[in-house]
Amino acid sequence: MTPERYKRLRETLDRRQSDLTILTDQMHKPRNIAALIRTADAVGIADVHMVWSAGARRPYKGTALGSQRWVKAHTHDSMADGINGLRQQGYQIYAAHLSEQAVNFRSVDYTRPCAVVLGNEKQGVGAVAESLADEHIIIPMMGMVESYNVSVAAAIILAEAQRQREAVGQYNRVSLTDDVYWQLFFEWAHP
Amino acid sequence: MTPERYKRLRETLDRRQSDLTILTDQMHKPRNIAALIRTADAVGIADVHMVWSAGARRPYKGTALGSQRWVKAHTHDSMADGINGLRQQGYQIYAAHLSEQAVNFRSVDYTRPCAVVLGNEKQGVGAVAESLADEHIIIPMMGMVESYNVSVAAAIILAEAQRQREAVGQYNRVSLTDDVYWQLFFEWAHP
Ligand SMILES: C[S@@+](CC[C@H](N)C(=O)[O-])C[C@H]1O[C@@H](n2cnc3c(N)ncnc32)[C@H](O)[C@@H]1O
Ligand SMILES: C[S@@+](CC[C@H](N)C(=O)[O-])C[C@H]1O[C@@H](n2cnc3c(N)ncnc32)[C@H](O)[C@@H]1O
Repeated sequence: MTPERYKRLRETLDRRQSDLTILTDQMHKPRNIAALIRTADAVGIADVHMVWSAGARRPYKGTALGSQRWVKAHTHDSMADGINGLRQQGYQIYAAHLSEQAVNFRSVDYTRPCAVVLGNEKQGVGAVAESLADEHIIIPMMGMVESYNVSVAAAIILAEAQRQREAVGQYNRVSLTDDVYWQLFFEWAHP
Repeated sequence: MTPERYKRLRETLDRRQSDLTILTDQMHKPRNIAALIRTADAVGIADVHMVWSAGARRPYKGTALGSQRWVKAHTHDSMADGINGLRQQGYQIYAAHLSEQAVNFRSVDYTRPCAVVLGNEKQGVGAVAESLADEHIIIPMMGMVESYNVSVAAAIILAEAQRQREAVGQYNRVSLTDDVYWQLFFEWAHP
């Protein structure tokens, strides 16, 4: 490994946000999932959580430009499992969901441990996540079309999470535990 | 036309931002262009400008969820033409471009007339736009992957433009000229 490569891996691991994640509710289009993983890597997310549609647990492929290598995907059998598991670890659950109760996505606090829930391309966020979420968040839309592409919506929300976290210095301190940090370093360095 | 439909068309036209646009530099993947048009509609952009790759002037198709209907696409023969035309109308040109001189995309002023230049999926922004732009803007990236998908980058930047414009009330006053407003109303109402 070159010194440059070593430096790049270490800097990226130093910035990883162990307490920021996403949870997909039956998203299924491979290119949306690939784009989502690429965005997750870019904002420093180490782990993503996924619930596949009933029966259809299929691995994502597609062109995330190899970013699958840098982000760990965890699957859950149901949204209840996924949400309860994250909540037990102290995460706030923000569902990106076009509901009556939704608040502006910029008004919630992404500096605390939190997970952004993203819905299925057609049906959106399901009833379980809708009721279990702490908040529904919405990106205001000014045009004729009623929703964003899900990977676009995710990027807009995660860019705001990144902005808030940068503002309070969360990218300037290491958040991965030592164990996880060196385990990832090992995996990244020895493909 | 139902009263609800009438109201929706009028409200959307009231919010259209006549002096915010994008200019694509040989972007070519139909699904990226479709996603871009959908995002443009959502932030209230009325017109987009495009330069196709040499020889390959092809109409975009794909699933913009019908948003092509709400956003007018103008093509230019070259980036020099496109940029100079916009500049003559008083637009600032912000190239989304990963260069040494690039400033943070949040540090520029999107409340003035401006165009965001987006680059080709592989080559990025070309040399002409690079040199003619007023500013290069960059979305900071914290991960291993070196760039965003172009339609994702566009959405992150345009969401910031929308935020700035909302903050100063630009969505609360009509910016289309009467002529354009009623021409669009006519087209939208009578497909
Ligand atoms: C294409 S949308 C699904 C639309 C679906 N018809 C609905 O009404 O929920 C897919 C997902 O993208 C996210 N999304 C899209 N536009 C959004 C917006 N303006 N605000 C928040 N989330 C949005 C949500 O997670 C949504 O479930
Ligand atoms: C996939 S990128 C092209 C990457 C190309 N290899 C380069 O270095 O320019 C396609 C376009 O998306 C936009 N883009 C992607 N990531 C960006 C970022 N972090 N900041 C600003 N623009 C970005 C730019 O307009 C870029 O030309």
